[in-house]
This record gives sequence, structure tokens and C-alpha cells, in this order.
Amino acid sequence: MEEADLADLIASYIVRPDPVDPHLSREVEGIDQTGARITTRVVTEKALTLYLNAQEIVTMMTIGDHPAYLGIGYLLNQMMLRPDDELIGVDFDEELDVVIVRTKRRTDYEDKLKKRTLTSGCAQGTTFGDLMEAIEDVALPKAELRTSWLYRLTHAINLTPSLYLEAGAIHGCVLCAADRPLVYMEDVGRHNAVDKIAGWMFVNKVDPADKIFYTTGRLTSEMVIKTVRMGIPVLVSRSGFTASGVDLARKTGLTLIGRARGKRFVALSGEDRIVFDQDLAYVAEESKRGHRKGATIDE
Amino acid sequence: MEEADLADLIASYIVRPDPVDPHLSREVEGIDQTGARITTRVVTEKALTLYLNAQEIVTMMTIGDHPAYLGIGYLLNQMMLRPDDELIGVDFDEELDVVIVRTKRRTDYEDKLKKRTLTSGCAQGTTFGDLMEAIEDVALPKAELRTSWLYRLTHAINLTPSLYLEAGAIHGCVLCAADRPLVYMEDVGRHNAVDKIAGWMFVNKVDPADKIFYTTGRLTSEMVIKTVRMGIPVLVSRSGFTASGVDLARKTGLTLIGRARGKRFVALSGEDRIVFDQDLAYVAEESKRGHRKGATIDE
Repeated sequence: MEEADLADLIASYIVRPDPVDPHLSREVEGIDQTGARITTRVVTEKALTLYLNAQEIVTMMTIGDHPAYLGIGYLLNQMMLRPDDELIGVDFDEELDVVIVRTKRRTDYEDKLKKRTLTSGCAQGTTFGDLMEAIEDVALPKAELRTSWLYRLTHAINLTPSLYLEAGAIHGCVLCAADRPLVYMEDVGRHNAVDKIAGWMFVNKVDPADKIFYTTGRLTSEMVIKTVRMGIPVLVSRSGFTASGVDLARKTGLTLIGRARGKRFVALSGEDRIVFDQDLAYVAEESKRGHRKGATIDE
Repeated sequence: MEEADLADLIASYIVRPDPVDPHLSREVEGIDQTGARITTRVVTEKALTLYLNAQEIVTMMTIGDHPAYLGIGYLLNQMMLRPDDELIGVDFDEELDVVIVRTKRRTDYEDKLKKRTLTSGCAQGTTFGDLMEAIEDVALPKAELRTSWLYRLTHAINLTPSLYLEAGAIHGCVLCAADRPLVYMEDVGRHNAVDKIAGWMFVNKVDPADKIFYTTGRLTSEMVIKTVRMGIPVLVSRSGFTASGVDLARKTGLTLIGRARGKRFVALSGEDRIVFDQDLAYVAEESKRGHRKGATIDE
């Protein structure tokens, strides 16, 4: 990819990380392998408490950006908000670290929260059975994923200025359309980054049918369930798979691509959506520029 | 490090991964970036339900090895088992995927479980405040970490046959003494891998004072709390830091080393335990052999 082309892709994000926001990371002092004093950046976390109307739902550890999107996305992915729910307001109290999502419909999740069972991703409030039921009726749309798009996307995402590149120890999720990355969210927990994108899509009434979802995290059952719940037909990761993630993707017809680095990737479900239009001779191996500052290889 | 030396270190583990155990991963078919059919391995997960005496505590997603150590370690790290508790039995029902830890002391955590608050690592049953209080009185022992040990350990761990190298998408934790890795546990969740080591240490009455704890995962507050709870004075990771992990490590005097890859590392707490006895000219950059099969760089 040409430099100008890359700059253009990076400039065209609707939402992207703000790696210099002083609320999201801070400088700390330490020593390196030679014993020399150094300063480095580390991401910060804070506790954000979410209310749905008058009901306290959960306290989440988050880097703290986009609290409204995070709260809305969390409620959607936990099936406490319905896709047709009307929001009458979202209040964020920065001092108390509280976000309150208010709906027109009256909600009451007290009973539901009593019998909470943890999934592997700790989606408390929702049983695994509930989530499975919710995605059983989903029919993911026909769509295509051209390999030329995939390589442009991963290259641009890896080189987008981010907290990951500045401080590491963070996950990123990116909503894409064809070869353009649109919305790039980061958080200490992968589930928060996904939820922020779900919230953004809900508020902006975004059609999921032609979208591609990219994550730095592993392709677990939780990640597959959330992507299917959002109605997005293609999920791509630079990380690997778990068996239950693969099983669920096959059951729901999700295109599941993992270990996407440089030239390489592996598809373990929904391969029929992939169009092999890229000449691999013109794809570079992963650039060192996409590695965290000071890291020999990425984390 | 000489090959014979490396083989000796790998042979001397007390517990190490069994990457060919068919219960822990399985082969799946898919396609690669050229469209060619391939088979690859992915890790499996199952739901394991833990009881403490007659009380159901939690259902965990795990790869399923070492259920007794996982159960015991979980209860210890949640402060539901006390260090001086006497176990009268641990039953594992493979068909029901249930593990029951039985203690001489009568326990009752029903009240406690009602007011559970989630930490970022979802340590349900224990509030963050409880955990903080529990580590406030801990005085970590004097100890040393020689950089020559650190490089031998990370080199040996990276090249130890593991599910990580076979299938990826998994975390590993290793209990070490001086330059020897002793117990290497893996799981889909980093917290499970730690808990298995805590359980193994409890059952085998292992002194933590001269140990070093290595993890592939990020250095979060949860990971710091667990290491301090175990009484181990040094925590090392190939991944990065969160600010709250650094703060807690400094408060408790834990030696915290991150981004340990090849020659490089960064220490952000407890630097006084580090003895710089290694000539860096003789340390290699990280070997490609330590990368997952088929990956260009590790995940």
C-alpha cells in the first residue's frame, strides 16, 4: 500500500483512538534491562457503574472513554436493551463514574440479575443458554470478503495511532466496511471494546449487513456470540481460535478468520464469503511499525 | 543456552503441558490464505462447576486439565479457603464436569455470594475491597532475581512444548525457582492458569518466598493481587502493564517485570530485588522456535 493511500485510510475513520488523551494512559518511571532509568506509558483503568433506568446493573473496569456507547452496547449484548428500544437519555456523571441509560420502555432486571451464571467472558446477568437462544434465529446476510480488502484493513489498522502502539496491554476492535476501517475502539477488556462498537452502531442506526468486524483478541464463543448478535457476517482476528468459538461460528454461518498477520490467515467457518482477489506476491509481511514502541514483537 | 542445557531444563519440570492430550485440543479443517484446505489444532473449553462442600460456587470455562488444583486454587484466591484449612477430599466427576472440594471446617458462602461485585477479572464472590484488605498485611520476603535466571527462564519457557505452541489462543503461567521452571499450567483464561498453580502450591505445601511467577498475560491489578496473595515476591510477564497493576505492585513491594522478550524487559516496581549479573552481549533475541506453529509472530 502506498503511504498516501494509508494516510487516506487512517484519516477517514469516523471514530479512532486518541492515544495522547491524558485520561487514558499515564507515564511511569522504571528501569530497563540495562538498569537504566526509563519512563514509559501504561494504560489506566477505572470503575464505571452502569444503571438501566433506576436499576444498577454492573460495575465495569474500563479505560473510560465513550462511557455512553459502552453502557448502551453492554445492555444490548446482554439483551437488556432490545434493538427497537427507544432511548430517552444517557447521563454520564464524570465525578461519580456512573452512566445511566434511560429507556421509554419500563425495564426491570432485578429477577434476572439474581440468577446470574457466568460465561467464560463473565457476561453476568445473561445465561449462556439465553445467549444461545438469542442467536439461534439470526440469519446472517450474504456478503463478501475480498482478500484485497482484508489485507488493506489489517495493514491500516496495525499502523493506526493507538493506545496499543503507545502503551500496549490493551485490546482493540474495529468496525469496517469493505476496505475501510470506520470505528476503532480500545479497552483493557476485549468485551468492553466490542460493547462500545455495539453502542455506537445502535446510536447511529448502522446497518450491520455489509460490515466486517476486526478484533485483536481471541476468537472465543463470547466473541462469536456478540458478533452474531450485532448481525455482522464476518469476524477477523490476528489471534487464534477456541474450539467452541469455531463450533458456534459454523452453527450460525459466521465467516470466522483468525491468525491474520502479514500474508497469512486461516478461515475455519463461512469460507464461502471469501473472494480470493489478492495476488499474494504483492502482500508484505507484517511491518515492524505495527509493533508497540519498545517491543521486539507485539503483545 | 546450549541445547543440552535447554533439554535438561525442560526435562526437569514437575508439571508441564501435555500438548498432545486429545481432551485439550482438537483438529479442525479450514482454508488458508491461498484457499488451500488445511487442518489445524484449536483448544477446547468446557464448563466445570465447582462446589465447596455442599455450596455451589461457580461454573468456569476451562480446558479441563487439573480440575482439583483449579478448584482449590480458585477457592484460595477468592479467600473462601484459608491457608490453614484442612482438605478432607476433592472429588471430580468427569461425566458431570463437577469438582467438589471438601474441608474439615464448616463453610458457608451463601451470604457472601449474594453481594458479589465484579472485579475487572470477574473474581465474583469477592469484592475488590476485600481483596485489597487481604493483601494489605502481606509483607513480601526479601529475595533476588538475577537477570541470568530471567533469561534462562524465559528462553526455556518459550521453547517448552505446550498447547500455546500447538494451538495458540491460550495463556500460560509458570512457577519457577531461581533459573528452573517447575510447574507450567495453561488455560483459556489467565485467571484459571494462575489458580491451578495456587492449588498445586497449596496441596504440595510449597514455600513461595524463593519463587518467581511467570505469566504470558498482562500485568493487571488482578494478576498482582493473586501473586501477592500467594506470597510470591517476583512477577514476570512477556506482556505489558496496566496502571492499576503497577500501583498495587508498588504498594505491596512486589517486583513487577513486563515486556520480557529476548534481551529486553522493563521493571516498574520492586527494582531493588534485581541483580544485573547477565552480560547482555550473550543474550539472543527471541527465537522463532518459540512462536506458534504456522504463525509469523506469536499471538
